[in-house]
Amino acid sequence: MTNTLADLNRMSSTSFAGAISDTFELAPWVAEAAAAKRPFATVTSLHEAMMGAVRAAPRERQLEFLCGHPDLAGKAARAGAITDDSKHEQSSVGLDSLSEADFARFHSLNDAYKAKFGFPFIVCVRRHTRDSILVQFERRLAHDAATEFAAALQEIFYITRLRIAARVTGEGMPKVNGRLSTHVLDTHVGRPAVGVPIDLYEFAGEAAHRIASAVTNSDGRTDRPLIGDRPLPIGRYELRFSIGDHFRSRGIEQGDPPFLDIVPLRFSIAEPEGHYHVPLLCTPWSYSTYRGS
Amino acid sequence: MTNTLADLNRMSSTSFAGAISDTFELAPWVAEAAAAKRPFATVTSLHEAMMGAVRAAPRERQLEFLCGHPDLAGKAARAGAITDDSKHEQSSVGLDSLSEADFARFHSLNDAYKAKFGFPFIVCVRRHTRDSILVQFERRLAHDAATEFAAALQEIFYITRLRIAARVTGEGMPKVNGRLSTHVLDTHVGRPAVGVPIDLYEFAGEAAHRIASAVTNSDGRTDRPLIGDRPLPIGRYELRFSIGDHFRSRGIEQGDPPFLDIVPLRFSIAEPEGHYHVPLLCTPWSYSTYRGS
Amino acid sequence: MTNTLADLNRMSSTSFAGAISDTFELAPWVAEAAAAKRPFATVTSLHEAMMGAVRAAPRERQLEFLCGHPDLAGKAARAGAITDDSKHEQSSVGLDSLSEADFARFHSLNDAYKAKFGFPFIVCVRRHTRDSILVQFERRLAHDAATEFAAALQEIFYITRLRIAARVTGEGMPKVNGRLSTHVLDTHVGRPAVGVPIDLYEFAGEAAHRIASAVTNSDGRTDRPLIGDRPLPIGRYELRFSIGDHFRSRGIEQGDPPFLDIVPLRFSIAEPEGHYHVPLLCTPWSYSTYRGS
Amino acid sequence: MTNTLADLNRMSSTSFAGAISDTFELAPWVAEAAAAKRPFATVTSLHEAMMGAVRAAPRERQLEFLCGHPDLAGKAARAGAITDDSKHEQSSVGLDSLSEADFARFHSLNDAYKAKFGFPFIVCVRRHTRDSILVQFERRLAHDAATEFAAALQEIFYITRLRIAARVTGEGMPKVNGRLSTHVLDTHVGRPAVGVPIDLYEFAGEAAHRIASAVTNSDGRTDRPLIGDRPLPIGRYELRFSIGDHFRSRGIEQGDPPFLDIVPLRFSIAEPEGHYHVPLLCTPWSYSTYRGS
Repeated sequence: MTNTLADLNRMSSTSFAGAISDTFELAPWVAEAAAAKRPFATVTSLHEAMMGAVRAAPRERQLEFLCGHPDLAGKAARAGAITDDSKHEQSSVGLDSLSEADFARFHSLNDAYKAKFGFPFIVCVRRHTRDSILVQFERRLAHDAATEFAAALQEIFYITRLRIAARVTGEGMPKVNGRLSTHVLDTHVGRPAVGVPIDLYEFAGEAAHRIASAVTNSDGRTDRPLIGDRPLPIGRYELRFSIGDHFRSRGIEQGDPPFLDIVPLRFSIAEPEGHYHVPLLCTPWSYSTYRGS
Repeated sequence: MTNTLADLNRMSSTSFAGAISDTFELAPWVAEAAAAKRPFATVTSLHEAMMGAVRAAPRERQLEFLCGHPDLAGKAARAGAITDDSKHEQSSVGLDSLSEADFARFHSLNDAYKAKFGFPFIVCVRRHTRDSILVQFERRLAHDAATEFAAALQEIFYITRLRIAARVTGEGMPKVNGRLSTHVLDTHVGRPAVGVPIDLYEFAGEAAHRIASAVTNSDGRTDRPLIGDRPLPIGRYELRFSIGDHFRSRGIEQGDPPFLDIVPLRFSIAEPEGHYHVPLLCTPWSYSTYRGS
Repeated sequence: MTNTLADLNRMSSTSFAGAISDTFELAPWVAEAAAAKRPFATVTSLHEAMMGAVRAAPRERQLEFLCGHPDLAGKAARAGAITDDSKHEQSSVGLDSLSEADFARFHSLNDAYKAKFGFPFIVCVRRHTRDSILVQFERRLAHDAATEFAAALQEIFYITRLRIAARVTGEGMPKVNGRLSTHVLDTHVGRPAVGVPIDLYEFAGEAAHRIASAVTNSDGRTDRPLIGDRPLPIGRYELRFSIGDHFRSRGIEQGDPPFLDIVPLRFSIAEPEGHYHVPLLCTPWSYSTYRGS
Repeated sequence: MTNTLADLNRMSSTSFAGAISDTFELAPWVAEAAAAKRPFATVTSLHEAMMGAVRAAPRERQLEFLCGHPDLAGKAARAGAITDDSKHEQSSVGLDSLSEADFARFHSLNDAYKAKFGFPFIVCVRRHTRDSILVQFERRLAHDAATEFAAALQEIFYITRLRIAARVTGEGMPKVNGRLSTHVLDTHVGRPAVGVPIDLYEFAGEAAHRIASAVTNSDGRTDRPLIGDRPLPIGRYELRFSIGDHFRSRGIEQGDPPFLDIVPLRFSIAEPEGHYHVPLLCTPWSYSTYRGS
């Protein structure tokens, strides 16, 4: 359930801690420390206060906190023995339905990571695709202990920022959402291309999975962003525009088969909270795209 | 073996017919008729004379000629019981190694076609991909008899033009070759992009098969056309440019993962004897392409 | 002064006519006829009712109405002996400050026009540049009488629609404003180009006059449209972007002198009530533009 | 007159010096020193040997050599009292026909330069426009003595390289020519734009002077480079393409007046011996350009 910031500022310390303590995995002391800093002017400053409590904690407590996080795609997750938040987060990126081979790979990475650093690998999965989690895993395994401790805390920051943003409403919300959008301009006639079907695919290895579909409206745009109201998962994507039918329906000479039919634009997202506008400017014989804003 | 046009003009009628009669499938009378029209100023006029003999023949002889062609991907082809030229042509497009399902589909189309028109389906396979042959098959099955008879003769024209061009050298060669080329311009620095790996894929249904690879030279071009010295098979293609590594090697900020890494350009070829120049103009954040010349 | 539609609907016929009769040049009978059609649900329907009165009038009255309009750039205008509305309109396009040669040209066109059609040349000058008025003048002189009579009434429609829109506020305002806008995208870094000075020039013959200036904001756009809140005068324009300084300030290699410094985009506007978005997508070595929306 | 390198290698020292000594302004000792180094395998090595003689000369002789050069746009030039080579070079860039104001500006710069450095300002005018000479003049006045002495010798190198290339033919010609070219692609139909008139303008201050014209051929190119067979003068240029007529003649809807009519591409040349390919890719509603190769 969600609370308003005003209510959280007003309620007893116990109620306050009860309302938001589960945003920091198994660490009720974080909410308790933050309770004393109230009132908060913004939701962002509430979150900063909670992170401040983590940063100010003694090393052993921090380590205990990190160790309270479940393995990514681990046996506990498989068995359902993790918190609800963790469960939803891991399933959002398909970690609850890995092939045996992928499960084994995560298992082996988890073991190597814990052996080296003494705590489980923590990553804000909602800012990633499966592929980019694996890239992160390999890279962070190569870190030294101090660098990786900081990296883990940074991921805690991302995870809890999202949880707070989902649980508390009020002034000064943290910026947690990215946006992926497009538009199609028919430069053959100098007007928006209307009614063009667009599919968005996400890559996992060489396989592309369709994750969104839309049709351009009278302004050549989609009514809603292709991804919005959530972080953009770091990863590789492909937009596919059915542009051949658009020109065919207008009776334009375009060859048989048409020189351009399905136009794929393949790109990666690196900034989960960024704005990616990836348009298509198109004639039957040419096109261009760019990262716009 | 090849002959020069000069030699063909000089030799006895019998030798002449012997040298080139197999260009017109099982129809030695075509070469015999052409022998009397010698000398030929150009290879093109030799071919025209042979086609003229076909066009001037009585209807029954034309029909017999058409019936002398093997089924496409038929049982004779499977059993090896067709002429060498036919064998090479059918294998060039993979008709000698179809799946059982595809074989069955061709078999059923062949039967329907012969039942309707009284002669086997003839198509110049070297001007097609497997997909476009199937498209042609379906379309031509819908023809009326007169239209299809003309279509079959037109394919004979394409087939024999290629065979003549392979068998005879001399002035006025028929134009049988297309060209697919590309170049990569790095508009981030206003210079050709050097050393960029490029792969060319051909589509069969949803599956893409790599059919050529190249690396750009100091002029941003490939040393040879991606396809040249032969007809461009009608069909769908994709060029893939490994542009991410190009910018990475120059230390350019491009995001992590890079916004653009493998750039696919998907297009169709409709003119087997045409020139298709499909370049990539690229920065780490934008690109464009067009059909050039 | 402006009135609300509600007030106009409520007031006496005499007050109503007094309030808006001068929108139809020297023709109080138009407002009087419209008074009887009240109430009007929209400002557009008020205007339509007034135009309806003109269209329903006997031919002689229509002719007298047309004849009540002053010569364009005529002697009356020079002497100040025309209505205030006409004065502002003619000065908006520089017709009050023509060279002697241009004055003579208008004078001669006016004479020829009146000799042929029996009424003065009427054009909604606020939808035109000086050049396009001259183009219109020449074209319309070639009309037959019926075509030109209709063309004159259409211009009356445009003129009075603008006057009504300026004099009356309320529901259903007529659409009289166009919009010219731009934005600058730096595709060298995939972000909006901030702080780029832009000048807009209007052409009169070969001479270009600067009519607006702006600097791109943090979104690569201008805070206000380059032209907005009024019709876009039909004519030729040039946008000039100082892009060389933009890349120089970022230390980008661009040649000395820079390959691109001031980038001119030259285009024409043909739809006064249209939206013209003319962006610049730019690296130090390449650029593109298009009519967007 | 021109000599072959072979002849120059064979002839007497006196004849050799007589044949080429005037390439180094009033310095016959340069050719005499080079005579002893014969034979030369390439024209480039002949030129290098002559420059080597200059570089090896004592400082006083170098200074005397520099002082033998005429003032740029100076009184001697006006009076015709300079060598033929200097005369042609100065007139190529309009220095023989300056306005009184420009003449006065050059005069004052010459005086300041000579007062500071003790020798006249030397620049290879054929690698410059009037504007870039003035830019160079101002910049080089700010040099210290050693830097400017080297700069003057570098200009001597450019001047004499051109003179040698014009006077001697043979193996290993020095690279002295740049190339400016263009092509026009009609991306509305995916084919070269044929018959498009193109004008090339050079800027002097705000004034643009037409220096070349051409019409695109069947390949969308011009039969000859717009500038070739000589250095590209450093400076600002504008290509103007009459693209409106091209689309009008094909009956394409493009607005009235057409959205695009004369398309100007404004750019600078910074490398006199470089290749600049500046194409136009165009529809009636969009275009792009880039520095290609």
